[in-house]
Amino acid sequence: MDDKIRKVSIIISKGGLEGVYPGLIMANGARMEGIEANLFFTFFGVATVGNPGMHMPSLLGILPGFSAMATSMMKKTMDKIDIPPVPEFVEMIADAGGKFYACKATVDMFKLKKEDFCAQVDSIINVGKFYEIAAGGEIIFT
Amino acid sequence: MDDKIRKVSIIISKGGLEGVYPGLIMANGARMEGIEANLFFTFFGVATVGNPGMHMPSLLGILPGFSAMATSMMKKTMDKIDIPPVPEFVEMIADAGGKFYACKATVDMFKLKKEDFCAQVDSIINVGKFYEIAAGGEIIFT
Amino acid sequence: MDDKIRKVSIIISKGGLEGVYPGLIMANGARMEGIEANLFFTFFGVATVGNPGMHMPSLLGILPGFSAMATSMMKKTMDKIDIPPVPEFVEMIADAGGKFYACKATVDMFKLKKEDFCAQVDSIINVGKFYEIAAGGEIIFT
Repeated sequence: MDDKIRKVSIIISKGGLEGVYPGLIMANGARMEGIEANLFFTFFGVATVGNPGMHMPSLLGILPGFSAMATSMMKKTMDKIDIPPVPEFVEMIADAGGKFYACKATVDMFKLKKEDFCAQVDSIINVGKFYEIAAGGEIIFT
Repeated sequence: MDDKIRKVSIIISKGGLEGVYPGLIMANGARMEGIEANLFFTFFGVATVGNPGMHMPSLLGILPGFSAMATSMMKKTMDKIDIPPVPEFVEMIADAGGKFYACKATVDMFKLKKEDFCAQVDSIINVGKFYEIAAGGEIIFT
Repeated sequence: MDDKIRKVSIIISKGGLEGVYPGLIMANGARMEGIEANLFFTFFGVATVGNPGMHMPSLLGILPGFSAMATSMMKKTMDKIDIPPVPEFVEMIADAGGKFYACKATVDMFKLKKEDFCAQVDSIINVGKFYEIAAGGEIIFT
């Protein structure tokens, strides 16, 4: 007799739509089942939760995963199907109770500030704090 | 005193041999130890379990991971060593009791049908159902 | 009331700094919290723990993730911030009690030997043994 999964803590570490959507879909699927969902954005994944009113430092813009043809191709596919664009998807998951965190090491590395992130990002946390939040659940690194 | 791992649920989300083999090897290794192994194919990973008699829609063929030089180079390496080609490896894991599932969101996104998959694919399931199946074990996203 | 995480077993399967650092950072963060940390190097991740006195077979050098511009760009960024180069980071984590293992299937595939690895690598183990070591903790595939 298995215990039901109560919590998932999903790390989004890669950029580009193909790096970002799997984690968002798994977080959304979790919330739809009443499973606690935490999202932790690290490395190139941080641009997922960039403040739309500001541009993330251009360093991120030129790093891999952020201009790939794959992304523009998937964008066309996304337009035809029932998956929302990233900012709306983030908002939807947050409205459903998902929690968003940015990785402190990444924030330091790219010299980001809290204002560089969208409103759904709860706080900037380190790896130790992430493990605390993830305790008692599944960790999924994407 | 640690509990033995009883179940692994492996998500294969990337294409190309280097995206596909790690998950298959971990599933096979699990079955060899008597550990329950579930494989969930999503995004570009779905081509792993394509029906060899049909071609997956060409959209998949041109997406990253499926024509990379890395793949052709690894293929040559695979030929020299003791790792079976993907379709045989899938069959071997299924024969050993591994279960194969395709991701509903991906199937919708790429407009796939059940017939586009090989015989080893048990069913097309959504993320919620995946979490149910994975309960009580480790989730490994590859 | 959630149980604290006691153990993480991190699989590093990708090359390049962007493939290697997330796993090292998560291992280091774990040790800083007193969490047991095991690192398992597989596929292109094995070069992370190459013996600096020897070159890994050139096959690895030409495979993806090991010469990418992303890597040289991140290297410049790393120089400016507080993250140590890979060999020092490996040593630091080992000194803090982290355990390093290389994947037997990969070692066979690339025809590597124990001497091809740095001193921190404890042993070469198969997937079954990895699951034994990981039992009772979280598995994180990066």
